Amino acid sequence: MAKYVYDFNEGNKDLKDLLGGKGANLAEMTNLGLPVPPGFVITTEACKVYLNEGSEPPELAAEVTQHLDALEQAMGKGLGQPDDPLLVSVRSGAKFSMPGMMDTVLNIGLNDESVQGLAKQAGNERFAWDSYRRLIQMFGKTVLGVDGEHFDDVFDDVKKHKGTTNDLDLDENDLRDIVDKYKAVVREHAGREFPTDPREQLDLAVRAVFDSWNGDRAKLYRRQERIPADLGTAVNVVAMVFGNLGMDSGTGVAFTRDPGSGDKGVYGDYLQNAQGEDVVAGIRNTVPLADLERIDKPAYDELMRIMSTLENHYKDLCDIEFTVERNKLWMLQTRIGKRTAAAAFTIAVQLVDEGLIDTDEALHRVNGAQLAQLMFPKFDESADKKQIAKGVNASPGAAVGKVVFDSATAAEWAARGEDVILVRRETNPDDLPGMIAAKGILTSRGGKTSHAAVVARGMGKTCVSGADELEVDVRGKKVTTKDGSTIGEGDVLSIDGTSGAVYLGEVPVTPSPVVQYFEGTIGADSDPLVAAVDRLIKHADSKRRLGVRANADTPEDAERARRFGAQGIGLCRTEHMFLGDRRKHVERLILAEGEDEQRAALQALLPLQREDFVGIFTAMDGLPVTVRLIDPPLHEFLPDLTELATKIAVAEATGQTVSDTDRKLYDAVQRLHEQNPMLGLRGVRLGLVIPGLFALQVRAIAEAAAECRKQGKDPRPEIMVPLVGAVQELEVVKEEAERILAEVADETGQSVHTLIGTMIEVPRAALTAGQIAEAAEFFSFGTNDLTQMGWGFSRDDVEGAFFGRYIDLGIFGVSPFETLDTEGIGRLVRIATEEGRKTRPDLKVGVCGEHGGDPESVHFFHEVGLDYVSCSPFRVPVARLEAGRAAVDTAGSDSR
Amino acid sequence: MAKYVYDFNEGNKDLKDLLGGKGANLAEMTNLGLPVPPGFVITTEACKVYLNEGSEPPELAAEVTQHLDALEQAMGKGLGQPDDPLLVSVRSGAKFSMPGMMDTVLNIGLNDESVQGLAKQAGNERFAWDSYRRLIQMFGKTVLGVDGEHFDDVFDDVKKHKGTTNDLDLDENDLRDIVDKYKAVVREHAGREFPTDPREQLDLAVRAVFDSWNGDRAKLYRRQERIPADLGTAVNVVAMVFGNLGMDSGTGVAFTRDPGSGDKGVYGDYLQNAQGEDVVAGIRNTVPLADLERIDKPAYDELMRIMSTLENHYKDLCDIEFTVERNKLWMLQTRIGKRTAAAAFTIAVQLVDEGLIDTDEALHRVNGAQLAQLMFPKFDESADKKQIAKGVNASPGAAVGKVVFDSATAAEWAARGEDVILVRRETNPDDLPGMIAAKGILTSRGGKTSHAAVVARGMGKTCVSGADELEVDVRGKKVTTKDGSTIGEGDVLSIDGTSGAVYLGEVPVTPSPVVQYFEGTIGADSDPLVAAVDRLIKHADSKRRLGVRANADTPEDAERARRFGAQGIGLCRTEHMFLGDRRKHVERLILAEGEDEQRAALQALLPLQREDFVGIFTAMDGLPVTVRLIDPPLHEFLPDLTELATKIAVAEATGQTVSDTDRKLYDAVQRLHEQNPMLGLRGVRLGLVIPGLFALQVRAIAEAAAECRKQGKDPRPEIMVPLVGAVQELEVVKEEAERILAEVADETGQSVHTLIGTMIEVPRAALTAGQIAEAAEFFSFGTNDLTQMGWGFSRDDVEGAFFGRYIDLGIFGVSPFETLDTEGIGRLVRIATEEGRKTRPDLKVGVCGEHGGDPESVHFFHEVGLDYVSCSPFRVPVARLEAGRAAVDTAGSDSR
Repeated sequence: MAKYVYDFNEGNKDLKDLLGGKGANLAEMTNLGLPVPPGFVITTEACKVYLNEGSEPPELAAEVTQHLDALEQAMGKGLGQPDDPLLVSVRSGAKFSMPGMMDTVLNIGLNDESVQGLAKQAGNERFAWDSYRRLIQMFGKTVLGVDGEHFDDVFDDVKKHKGTTNDLDLDENDLRDIVDKYKAVVREHAGREFPTDPREQLDLAVRAVFDSWNGDRAKLYRRQERIPADLGTAVNVVAMVFGNLGMDSGTGVAFTRDPGSGDKGVYGDYLQNAQGEDVVAGIRNTVPLADLERIDKPAYDELMRIMSTLENHYKDLCDIEFTVERNKLWMLQTRIGKRTAAAAFTIAVQLVDEGLIDTDEALHRVNGAQLAQLMFPKFDESADKKQIAKGVNASPGAAVGKVVFDSATAAEWAARGEDVILVRRETNPDDLPGMIAAKGILTSRGGKTSHAAVVARGMGKTCVSGADELEVDVRGKKVTTKDGSTIGEGDVLSIDGTSGAVYLGEVPVTPSPVVQYFEGTIGADSDPLVAAVDRLIKHADSKRRLGVRANADTPEDAERARRFGAQGIGLCRTEHMFLGDRRKHVERLILAEGEDEQRAALQALLPLQREDFVGIFTAMDGLPVTVRLIDPPLHEFLPDLTELATKIAVAEATGQTVSDTDRKLYDAVQRLHEQNPMLGLRGVRLGLVIPGLFALQVRAIAEAAAECRKQGKDPRPEIMVPLVGAVQELEVVKEEAERILAEVADETGQSVHTLIGTMIEVPRAALTAGQIAEAAEFFSFGTNDLTQMGWGFSRDDVEGAFFGRYIDLGIFGVSPFETLDTEGIGRLVRIATEEGRKTRPDLKVGVCGEHGGDPESVHFFHEVGLDYVSCSPFRVPVARLEAGRAAVDTAGSDSR
Repeated sequence: MAKYVYDFNEGNKDLKDLLGGKGANLAEMTNLGLPVPPGFVITTEACKVYLNEGSEPPELAAEVTQHLDALEQAMGKGLGQPDDPLLVSVRSGAKFSMPGMMDTVLNIGLNDESVQGLAKQAGNERFAWDSYRRLIQMFGKTVLGVDGEHFDDVFDDVKKHKGTTNDLDLDENDLRDIVDKYKAVVREHAGREFPTDPREQLDLAVRAVFDSWNGDRAKLYRRQERIPADLGTAVNVVAMVFGNLGMDSGTGVAFTRDPGSGDKGVYGDYLQNAQGEDVVAGIRNTVPLADLERIDKPAYDELMRIMSTLENHYKDLCDIEFTVERNKLWMLQTRIGKRTAAAAFTIAVQLVDEGLIDTDEALHRVNGAQLAQLMFPKFDESADKKQIAKGVNASPGAAVGKVVFDSATAAEWAARGEDVILVRRETNPDDLPGMIAAKGILTSRGGKTSHAAVVARGMGKTCVSGADELEVDVRGKKVTTKDGSTIGEGDVLSIDGTSGAVYLGEVPVTPSPVVQYFEGTIGADSDPLVAAVDRLIKHADSKRRLGVRANADTPEDAERARRFGAQGIGLCRTEHMFLGDRRKHVERLILAEGEDEQRAALQALLPLQREDFVGIFTAMDGLPVTVRLIDPPLHEFLPDLTELATKIAVAEATGQTVSDTDRKLYDAVQRLHEQNPMLGLRGVRLGLVIPGLFALQVRAIAEAAAECRKQGKDPRPEIMVPLVGAVQELEVVKEEAERILAEVADETGQSVHTLIGTMIEVPRAALTAGQIAEAAEFFSFGTNDLTQMGWGFSRDDVEGAFFGRYIDLGIFGVSPFETLDTEGIGRLVRIATEEGRKTRPDLKVGVCGEHGGDPESVHFFHEVGLDYVSCSPFRVPVARLEAGRAAVDTAGSDSR
């Protein structure tokens, strides 16, 4: 028979699938002998049955009764027993943490009778009625679906009537009044009475947790985070302990090390005479954890001992929630703590030095996204700044943008390319789309553990929370500062997530120390964070199997890439060699009448291109440089059709003369105009249609290599043909290229070994890679085009038009242009790699799309067995780190 | 040890791989006891060694010597023996017939001495010197690579000097003079003397045949026809017999039945005192074969007996080449004869009735391309026509187009969408691209077996050859008619390939009897061709496993499709339902400010669309109708951006006021403008972004079906979602559609079972078909888009821009938009079909791209196991026939 309910002492931390993260960790702490309030967990299996069948498993009620009996016995009270009620909390707990996504109900067991018993037992009428009104409020919102604003309005009215803004000024009579009014709210908006039977309260709350698994917000979060939809959630039923019994009580959130900086020493917030939700929601401002020592030394000391136990047990930074009930400490939750990028690196090497983990594990615990964050620039310290507030440094980074006050505007403005700062009093899950769209988040309420802070850190987004000097009026769309001036929608703010500072206007920025370290301008020992990065990236280099190259088109980029650790250039685009001053030659080429003029135009470009290549080969002396022959449609080098048409039409309508050149240009632009240039005459097609174009480029490459060789250098060019879809295309180009390479070798006496290969960026190329490898000496996946053509959408057209909507609908959690869609496009990569190598076992295979620098995608490329990834110079360290992590992870580490 | 040379009596017709088609058939005829001149075949294996190694296999020379000795012994003469020379021809013969592609040399063995011996033995000086000059000319051109024009110039000069235009007016002295001058041409242009050693002539000629396998024309032809590049060619060395020994000699080409009409009775051309090349090249006009009975009755009678033997032996129409040498008949070649579409059908059923083959085999011998040809309209017989010439009815059909005189112009004009007629004196392989581009081909020289005629029939292109009343001046780009008027480039001609008539200007056309039969306006017994089509298509229906549906958007098309045998509609596009008068609603939808206006615009469309669907469901009562929800980008329903921008700019520049509507429209067009609309906001994306759009369509379908049901009909709608790339997209649409279907069922009391499925037209959809089938009840491949995205080129942009060049380069032989690229795009079809059915075994799978009506592609779809193909109504019979052929072929027939 299935077992649907577990006591905490029946579980452990490895049962996350069954008990959820929260339940498994509560069980673990219970078994460690820590002071966890007794309780039990209803398993994810029960939830799955409910979700599939539409009703709870029939056995569940009896099992709950049995465990509830045991709980009542342990506590010596009955659930909702009028004279001395046992109260319980009901909390969701899925395998993966979904902050704010699932619903919680506290104080279950209270009704008009038991509230009296609670008051008597606690000796505190106010506390009892406050607990009761909280129950009705939470139950009304999360179980009965009443809009929270109705409760807030009642609460605010009573406070206003009383002439106060502080909750603590309300006495038991006020709260009793609120309870009555809350009941009326439920009656009116839920269409039923608030249930007074404690067991009914419990059962409805459990069911509400189950239902919340399929709430819109949860579904959206799961789709975005790619959490499987069928895991279900567990439900934790825990005996209530109270942090709001008076000033000898309180509640807090703590970390075993500073999750912001990674510094040793505990870190947290504490709030006297409050329940946990008050801290998490950031509704009232907290005091630092250290103050607890002064407030309640025994509780503080025990907490310190427990945190030390947990860290040694979990071998990582833990975050905990705790409550002090009349000087007695209770542990309500623990989990591996979220942390900033800097903290991740610093803590990982600390733990190695402390002997808790090895370096492989340390590498596993940091990631490329964090490293990328550390490479973000910071605000220029010496710049003139007008600080208007100081909040909590909730998520590091420096963000500058226009102020917006709601999610919709944030998404809309971001979609049209504007940087925005989302400003709210506090955030809630409804603000998620806006937080995704914004460069930074600023709230006037809440600490480091508020919704805004937790979510922003998870996203790697800059966040300043609890900037309480600012008065945020979301409906009026304005922020009022301490000195009374106002900031409106569209005004620019700069926020520093590392310091918590908020500046008016745009503040200039300076590079990060990590970047300076990579640039070689500061040493590894100049700063503990840099030292940690240095150790872990060197470890990654020693472990990784993937090579890392850079995409670089100029000697400057090539040099930087080399400093950042690139082992070659995986993509040197040649398009820029046809722009700027050289555009005139291209126009001449396109307007050429006859082959002689065409040849002359090409000939003029030869020495210029040769010089370009000499520069790049010199910068990458001894390392491979993959040169891609010209790729974009020719008309990209010409004026815009609509502009030109308008110009000519206006000139004609107003009797001006139109120059011959303009007319010829217009004819050419019209002739070359394409409905879908992305699917038109570009890449190898251009090379096959315009005689001499590829030949010019191949000759420039060959002559440049020969010249470098003469100068005693070691040029290693690789010629890459773009947009090949059929082996025949490559064969034709290769035949010509080999002829030219041989000619130049003859002419110069320098024979430079030059590989000839192809981009794999057209789906058909991947599907016929076995044939293409007969002609190609290397493959390089152009995953941008492969994504465009594989999905059938062009990045330019769709990201603004419907990606937002698609992310809202959860069709994808992240743009497939950012992280490779491994199921669809990745399958093409896998097919092509396998079949290409079957034809040519020594085929070199790399990737040069932007995915080459995306952390998650790098793991996929490692797993598929590519030889290298190539990415922008700034992403090279990220790719190195992730390639090392991928190697370490596949070598045996279990979790990710 | 390999055997590289076979005597004719060592081979048979089944050895085509080794001996080539010509050699195998010569061997077969030899073994049948027919009068074949003795000879031997150098195998394709020898050619392959030569092509791979760059030199003949070492054993070859000795083997040739041995077989040559045997030949000399049989003939009682030595090769090039001065007093009585054995002469031989050297001809290529690959496995697949490649007309005009490979080179032939006759009269090998002649030199300054043996020409005397030949003259003596033949008693004919003129003949001997004519033979010698032919050898030098052919050898010079094909073996030594001298431009043929140099020889033509010499020949024309001598004739001009003599004051004649007839070759037969030249006497032995003239020819002796020509031989000297030809030798000088060789010396000058080949840089060597004409080789006088007969064995050297033979060896060089054999090598030239080998080399010609890799000639540009041959490579191009192979790439186009998808003939593998490594087959190699055999070489036939045959004792010469002479049709040019006088008026008691001659040469001819014949068919065992009329290859044009399929009528019983032999058919052919004969030319007295000539060699075979004169007939094939169409240089002199022939007489009908029947005239041979009068000229040489014994030879004629023997030929008739032989033709009867061959037909009974091959059980098919044979075509033969023969020579009469001084009243003695020699068979030079036979093969299965090419035929017109009408002949193919007529002959196939004749052979069944004659008991030679069964109906499966008859079905195998016709094909959909031929049936399609028979469905071409013909010229209206009652129309006013100005006939300007009558030529040979070389390839049937009716073509109208502008006159062009060269391949380049033909390709260029065709690329810009013009219909052209290629007019030449005679065609040669260099004209192939022009022939491909043209609607029809007209020549002033040559019979039914000329290059133009053979190639045009192969392509299914209308051709009139030998219209000798027309004087064609290719350089001057004009045609002069008998009455002296001229026709220039760009003038319109109409040519009737069925009658041979050439008309000035555009002649209107009438439908074919086959179409009338399908339309039901004439009966199956009204005409033998129609009767043959009727028998074979019914047989195909009884055998085929593939269903055939039609793509039809209107009741009229649906009715026609039904008459043509469609078993449902596989693609009902709904785009037209938003055009015409309804465009105003679409503009309103796009310009709508707010959801209310949007809803109103959609609401206005609902009754209109419902009516459309009622019409179609009524027409297809009882058969499935797959309705595709709206697919193209919205901006297709709006004015062109450039036009609108120009209009507004001109109005502004000239001080006119621009209307508010125009401004709003301009804003909308700009906002919706996409760089690559094919890769933009269309299909399911549109449905997900514009609320209510798909809902409107689903409701219209459901209400229409309910209405039909109320009228007692049996509507079978299937809803097809376009452009799905991920199962999540389909899930969202399906959820809404199912809700609406249920609503309409409730409202109307009519529950119509409606499948919901998806197009598979985005590569990613094919790659994740296993997932998509979780939501889709059917798949329909949109092979047009799948080809566009899989190759990464859009049809609109590329066909004109580079397909011509690609076909020239042999990158593909046929546009992948015409015949499915089975290796690349077909692989996606295969993957999706297999994996979709793995998820959902009863998944219905069809194709609704244009490939659904392409004969070759239908075989692929059969092989992959699709349930049906859907194509335009006119292609339905073609698809039925090919689906039957595919079933018959896979059931066991060996060859195709």
